[in-house]
Amino acid sequence: MKEHLTLLEAFNETPNPVTGHGKREVSVLTAAFREIEDTLASDIYGTGKVIEEFEAKMAKVLGKEAAVFFPSGTMAQQIALRIWCDRQQLKRVAYHPLCHLEIHEQDGLKELHHIEPILLADKDRLIRLEDVVNLEQDISCLLLELPQREIGGQLPEYAELEAISSYCHKKGIKLHLDGARLLESLPYYGRTAAEVCGLFDSVYISVYKGIGGIAGAVLAGDKEVMEESKIWKRRHGGDLVSLYPYILTADYYFGLREQRMGQYYEEAKELAAYFNACPRVSTLPEVPVTNMFHVHFSLPQEQLEPLLITVYEETGIGLISSLRESGSGTCFNEVTIGDRYAALPKERLKEAFRLLQEGLSR
Amino acid sequence: MKEHLTLLEAFNETPNPVTGHGKREVSVLTAAFREIEDTLASDIYGTGKVIEEFEAKMAKVLGKEAAVFFPSGTMAQQIALRIWCDRQQLKRVAYHPLCHLEIHEQDGLKELHHIEPILLADKDRLIRLEDVVNLEQDISCLLLELPQREIGGQLPEYAELEAISSYCHKKGIKLHLDGARLLESLPYYGRTAAEVCGLFDSVYISVYKGIGGIAGAVLAGDKEVMEESKIWKRRHGGDLVSLYPYILTADYYFGLREQRMGQYYEEAKELAAYFNACPRVSTLPEVPVTNMFHVHFSLPQEQLEPLLITVYEETGIGLISSLRESGSGTCFNEVTIGDRYAALPKERLKEAFRLLQEGLSR
Repeated sequence: MKEHLTLLEAFNETPNPVTGHGKREVSVLTAAFREIEDTLASDIYGTGKVIEEFEAKMAKVLGKEAAVFFPSGTMAQQIALRIWCDRQQLKRVAYHPLCHLEIHEQDGLKELHHIEPILLADKDRLIRLEDVVNLEQDISCLLLELPQREIGGQLPEYAELEAISSYCHKKGIKLHLDGARLLESLPYYGRTAAEVCGLFDSVYISVYKGIGGIAGAVLAGDKEVMEESKIWKRRHGGDLVSLYPYILTADYYFGLREQRMGQYYEEAKELAAYFNACPRVSTLPEVPVTNMFHVHFSLPQEQLEPLLITVYEETGIGLISSLRESGSGTCFNEVTIGDRYAALPKERLKEAFRLLQEGLSR
Repeated sequence: MKEHLTLLEAFNETPNPVTGHGKREVSVLTAAFREIEDTLASDIYGTGKVIEEFEAKMAKVLGKEAAVFFPSGTMAQQIALRIWCDRQQLKRVAYHPLCHLEIHEQDGLKELHHIEPILLADKDRLIRLEDVVNLEQDISCLLLELPQREIGGQLPEYAELEAISSYCHKKGIKLHLDGARLLESLPYYGRTAAEVCGLFDSVYISVYKGIGGIAGAVLAGDKEVMEESKIWKRRHGGDLVSLYPYILTADYYFGLREQRMGQYYEEAKELAAYFNACPRVSTLPEVPVTNMFHVHFSLPQEQLEPLLITVYEETGIGLISSLRESGSGTCFNEVTIGDRYAALPKERLKEAFRLLQEGLSR
């Protein structure tokens, strides 16, 4: 008897979950290391073949002079902003109100670096050129996140990005890219990573979002800035004697998935269309621009969950793993497309949406 | 023709290197993961079975209420000192002039936490009770390193440690243990880790020194302090989505080596005696108190290296891997005993020292 399952438990029990690459489990590591020689030497405190080669490869991909591997994006981005603030002797930056640094890092930027952020734009929309032009205080650095994760992975049009970049350049404002999901944005822009990064002075990408590694981040920019970032990496406690478990897996999954971002993007559009065909359901953006989107339900979580669980149990398709309240009587969740989607039995997926549509019509 | 080899190259080419556990290479990881199920779930941002069970185990070993796994000791120790300083509203601590925080961390404690350290004792000796008693300024926290690595791994007598601890307790000074090599100190003290840690308010141990994991650290103390340390861990960028590559290897090698520390200690004493029997050679301490010591040579590096390389080539025994200048015409190196020593062909080792003795007598 499958009674009183939570949504997450029911999702995890389905043979065909729709989102993500797969389970976050040890096999992610062992699959990558199966192809690596046991005698390969560890990196040592940021030096050695393993780390230097991956950093050089990422610098090339991102079109920058140099790149540095970090254990986390939290560390990499605080450090990038700190360096720009120190250079301009002005500890003020600007970013979106739902920026990772503002809502997920326990205020590390403020507590460790004493940098004051100005929150640009409203929570529910992207930063526009006029927001930057209308800034009333000087800033050292503007951080843009591509795509803006917390509002469903929205992207500005490329022309607006170029306009912001050239305005910042003219005003002496450094432009930093939170590109946690940069690779996932490229199919929409139809540009290379290096082209997009060319608009920015410094760039961070995550190696465990679309790429699907275990953990880690890459910061890229001018050589001098990257050398300085290594000093701060040591200060933060991020210059580990060995980072190879993260680097080698990042490299393995980068090779596997770099070329699949276009496919994930197409699949995200397909899946969003399925959701949008259901009553009381809408996605943000309506047509996704990356491999992610938010799905909003205009009914209460406690009403929706039993319906979803029934759908999962009857079809074996796990649509979403959790829900968050988003106001009175509504809820939503983030959906991210990875390797799993392509392997789904499509007839069952259609059946799952038929059942969901039916349940929501009652 | 083996010409112009560096000391390190010659050491690495020997079939029988004397120091350490083994090469820092990928096999360290794969050996540990061979025993781990592929379906084991990753830790997620500091939660989940993998991290919580290891933290609970370490808390028990160290006799503290709670423990937190950190990617590095650099991060763990800065955070411990920061918490003690915040509690006492006094950003001043004291530690040894050759403390890791003073010489290996690019001044992270000062640059990120604005904590002022007072350097206690001379560089070449341990901190004594009288140094603490004679402090002219108030401090929030005293850090003691057991053993004091940079002077050959020396240890204070246990009675002195107890006296310092009770003095600090009386004066309201928090006592923090840099126990990077704590386990390695236990055979000399004849105490459990929990007994020694009982003298301290907070404790850090490394999982990749004597234990021989890949990287990582454990901080232990009261529950409330450990909860606070998790907030700072997030701020530092150390709250990685997945730390299991370090945790699972730490656990594996802890199980393998925890009971071998006494053996390494005995072997260190044996090896130090071999060195001390050579002319112009002395060890610090003369009789090691842990698995490590320094070996000092009263001849110039450029004269010693060719001699060592000849010994390595003729016997297949690699005694030390590098040398550092320590004044005019003298040099030294740190020696650490690990798994390799027990497997050495002992006759060859004696032959190596016979040759070294002969060469140094000329």
